[in-house]
Amino acid sequence: MSLDELSRLIRRPATRRFVTDRDVPRETVAALVDAARWTGSARNRQPWRFVEVRDRALIEALSRLGAYAQFVSGAPVVLAVAAADNGFADTAFDTGRVTQSLVLAAAALGLGACPATLFPEANVDEARRLLRLDEGWLPDHLVALGYPSAEPAPAAPRVIPGGRLPLETLLTTI
Amino acid sequence: MSLDELSRLIRRPATRRFVTDRDVPRETVAALVDAARWTGSARNRQPWRFVEVRDRALIEALSRLGAYAQFVSGAPVVLAVAAADNGFADTAFDTGRVTQSLVLAAAALGLGACPATLFPEANVDEARRLLRLDEGWLPDHLVALGYPSAEPAPAAPRVIPGGRLPLETLLTTI
Repeated sequence: MSLDELSRLIRRPATRRFVTDRDVPRETVAALVDAARWTGSARNRQPWRFVEVRDRALIEALSRLGAYAQFVSGAPVVLAVAAADNGFADTAFDTGRVTQSLVLAAAALGLGACPATLFPEANVDEARRLLRLDEGWLPDHLVALGYPSAEPAPAAPRVIPGGRLPLETLLTTI
Repeated sequence: MSLDELSRLIRRPATRRFVTDRDVPRETVAALVDAARWTGSARNRQPWRFVEVRDRALIEALSRLGAYAQFVSGAPVVLAVAAADNGFADTAFDTGRVTQSLVLAAAALGLGACPATLFPEANVDEARRLLRLDEGWLPDHLVALGYPSAEPAPAAPRVIPGGRLPLETLLTTI
C-alpha cells in the first residue's frame, strides 16, 4: 500500500451521522479489532480492551457520558476502548495509537467512524459499570461505527476551525 | 486500500536498529508529517508539533532522556512529537493517534520506525530546551526513523512477551 492510499484513509473526515438501514456485522467489528490489536505499545503492554456495544439503551446511556459524545447515539455499533489504569503515564498515548489503527481500518472497509471522549472521571466510572468491566479498566473513549449518511451531521465542536494546520506551522528541523 | 494491506502495515514490527549507509531525505520526513497532520483530534485541536532532528549530538542527548530511548541514537533521523500542555486531559490520546499515523506512513514507504517515551517530567523539560520549543509544548515522545538493518536489535523491553494478546482476550460484546 502506497503512502498516497494511506493518506486518503487518514484524510477521511470523521463520521458523526450514520445511515439507519445498514448494520455493521459482528464479524466486521471483530476484523477491525483483529487488525488494530497489532498496534505497538510501550513495552508491549497492550493496555487496551474493547467492548462492542449493540444494546440501544446502553448506547444511549453512554452517549450522555461525555460533553461531545451525544452523536454516538445514532451509530448502529459503538466500540468502547478501555485503558488499563496501571499507574503508567503513557497509557492514553497507546490507546490513542490503537484507536487510530481502528479508525483507519474502518475507513479501509468504507465504514465511517468517530471517536468520542468520556469525562469527567465519574462518567468514566459509570461507563465502566455499564460495560461490566473490571476495576482497573477505564473506558474513556468510544468509537462510533456505521455507514456514513449522506445527510450532513450537526457542526462538530472545533477549537481550530477550517481543516488542518499547514506543514510549515507543524514541522521544524534542527 | 484494503484492510489486508493496512493490516500488514500495522503488523510491521517496530524497528530499533537501522542501516547506517542510507539517509532519510528531508522531503521524506515532510511527506510523513504531511500525511499524519490530517489525523483527527478532539475538537480539532491538533495538539501536536514536530521537530525533525538530524544533529548527531542532539540525537545522542535526546536518547538519554528516557529509560528505553537509547536505541534512537542509532537512527539517521529522529522526529520529536511535542504535545500541547494545554490543561486538556486528552492530549496524550491525540498525540498517540498522530504518532500511529506517522508510524504507518513510514511503513508505507518501507521505512522502519519506533516510538520512544521521554520521562520523567524533568527529562521532557530538558528535551524541550534542547529542541528550542516554546514553553507549553512537551516533547514527551520521539519517533526514530530509518531503513531497517538486517541485524537484529537488542531485545526490546516487554511487559507482555510473545506477540499480541488474542482477540478473545481483547473483545467482548454487549
